[in-house]
Amino acid sequence: MPALSEDKNTIEKLTNLGKKLLSELKQKESPYFDRPVRSLSNVIFDEKAGTLKLGDRTSRRTFLNIGHARTFMQSVMIAAKCKELVKNERSASIRELYYQLKHTIPGLTDNTLEGQEESNPVIVDLETALDALREYLHLTADRSGQLFGPLTIEDQGDKIDCLRLGKSGLSIPSIVDDYKFLDHDAEFILVVETGAMGDRLVEEKFHIKNKAILVSSGGQPSRGVRRLTHLLHQKLELPVYVFTDGDPWGFYIYSVLKTGSMNLAFESKRLATPSSKFIGMTIEDIEKYGLKKVTEKLKGIPAKKAGGPTEDYKRAIELKNYAWFKHELWQKELDKMLATGMRIEQQALASKKLEFVSDTYLPEKIKNHEFLP
Amino acid sequence: MPALSEDKNTIEKLTNLGKKLLSELKQKESPYFDRPVRSLSNVIFDEKAGTLKLGDRTSRRTFLNIGHARTFMQSVMIAAKCKELVKNERSASIRELYYQLKHTIPGLTDNTLEGQEESNPVIVDLETALDALREYLHLTADRSGQLFGPLTIEDQGDKIDCLRLGKSGLSIPSIVDDYKFLDHDAEFILVVETGAMGDRLVEEKFHIKNKAILVSSGGQPSRGVRRLTHLLHQKLELPVYVFTDGDPWGFYIYSVLKTGSMNLAFESKRLATPSSKFIGMTIEDIEKYGLKKVTEKLKGIPAKKAGGPTEDYKRAIELKNYAWFKHELWQKELDKMLATGMRIEQQALASKKLEFVSDTYLPEKIKNHEFLP
Repeated sequence: MPALSEDKNTIEKLTNLGKKLLSELKQKESPYFDRPVRSLSNVIFDEKAGTLKLGDRTSRRTFLNIGHARTFMQSVMIAAKCKELVKNERSASIRELYYQLKHTIPGLTDNTLEGQEESNPVIVDLETALDALREYLHLTADRSGQLFGPLTIEDQGDKIDCLRLGKSGLSIPSIVDDYKFLDHDAEFILVVETGAMGDRLVEEKFHIKNKAILVSSGGQPSRGVRRLTHLLHQKLELPVYVFTDGDPWGFYIYSVLKTGSMNLAFESKRLATPSSKFIGMTIEDIEKYGLKKVTEKLKGIPAKKAGGPTEDYKRAIELKNYAWFKHELWQKELDKMLATGMRIEQQALASKKLEFVSDTYLPEKIKNHEFLP
Repeated sequence: MPALSEDKNTIEKLTNLGKKLLSELKQKESPYFDRPVRSLSNVIFDEKAGTLKLGDRTSRRTFLNIGHARTFMQSVMIAAKCKELVKNERSASIRELYYQLKHTIPGLTDNTLEGQEESNPVIVDLETALDALREYLHLTADRSGQLFGPLTIEDQGDKIDCLRLGKSGLSIPSIVDDYKFLDHDAEFILVVETGAMGDRLVEEKFHIKNKAILVSSGGQPSRGVRRLTHLLHQKLELPVYVFTDGDPWGFYIYSVLKTGSMNLAFESKRLATPSSKFIGMTIEDIEKYGLKKVTEKLKGIPAKKAGGPTEDYKRAIELKNYAWFKHELWQKELDKMLATGMRIEQQALASKKLEFVSDTYLPEKIKNHEFLP
């Protein structure tokens, strides 16, 4: 992979970590490093920034501690490998990293790593300790999602006009930090939950008619989709609208894009887009657009029934209690969902007609600024 | 979506079905239609063609049969909607189709469809009854996979040079029948199981250095990936090599691409590529390339142990018994897997070095024609 603008910074961080450990060794002290505690109790909603972040609590990993020695060794080994990757302008999947580093320690019968379940948490340790996005360490994750729209991207020297990719679209890779956004004629960014809805909007030429950069997420957004949405918003200064199913899982997808996710709270500032707005589907849409026939029932048992709340009901109540869903409009929306016991899918709009979503639903919402915050 | 070359044919088939039903009604007979039985007992391995297909057994769906009336009505309704889609050069996902057709029948309290679990099997009925690929009915499935390589594709009038898409690549849509393959400078087609291995090969510029069309499947290949591989092979007359993990699931992915899948046996002739060859990973590779340290154990219990065989062991024995795995080289490979209890992942090649797969492993296999049939 090509160099990232962060590379110099990342190498400096890794080098400093190494120097620090070395100086401790020279002073015959036990080397250690600190990193923020990642447990939920240390996840904070930063109201001002509008994102999740980690609190101030840190924990120390010390070499001369029988309970830490193995993970300490693994941390140093992985840090060294990441430095090599960054220096050589290479990348590796976290699976490849595991395979690259797994070996028997000379003089011992132990392996450096027994499975990826050992290397994965150490990678996250390093990310938090160094305050470096995993992508800055040149580690890749699974890709998903497509991009369409009036935007030219330079990727590895190739200039890609994303308006000239037919109905296929650009596949969104794991690392997008090296993308250069050359030219664009877009007015907003629309992130769509399901691939099928993305395909619908492309068939209707929504992205062309509305000058929209369409990011089709294909379910729970990958890191690549989240980072790309963040970067597009930041660099092009365009509004971001998020379009999901009208159910607790769709609402949570929105909140992950907007606010960050709890288990990656330390990376929200680079992955989340706090100014995103929610365009639909909402429970209010059901009445407004006459969709009652094509709603589905919330899954699980309501709170007031024996054994409840479970599944969708439980999830909706959890959302209600999150600090970042406290806005009265979201409380109203979630109350309505719980009271009616209904949910509604994006594709249910096809019950009107196929082009209803692109000709009426989305343009009206955008024109009238009908968003949830 | 644009017109497909099959459209005229599809409309004719749908029209003929309608005319047949109408003439039966006029003659005061019960309308009916026949379609091949799809149960496993009617799935045949056609040795000559090298693909799975359905046998001669058919079953009849008759309107004036209390057990058939509802599905008969659904079949006619879906056939009519598909005709409309094809005529209007539109497509719909099978979820949208369901939403488009779900309504209360006038004068009754019944809905036409209660859930997608009612419409999905009727769609497959129509596909088999008409001998029309679902894509010919303009119905889309979920997309997955990416394409890279020295090939220019025309998609909806856009000419896409797939060698100039950076590390992102072309996202493979559900329907590829309208693709025009304009120009190419490729020597073979390589289908890769995991997205991460596809990304590795792109980072190594394997597709450029080896003039390869790289199809990254992202796990079990989607219908789009299977159809695209079939069409690329058929139209460009290039050999197809399939590269999966060395485990029963990887081997089955290969056989789906080569021979077809059992539940879509009626579409093998359009989705499968019988001349495909298997390039790896094999259990033999483990010794040859010194990969023992990075193998994994087969999951489950071997046949000879109490409670066995389960999981990987069970699956490997099932594969051994399939007619299309009867070649002695495959029998040997599966016996070796069962005897050693080992499996090996594509990404384990990273234990040599990251570029080993692209600089040594694949080129050597291709040069020496080391394939499994």
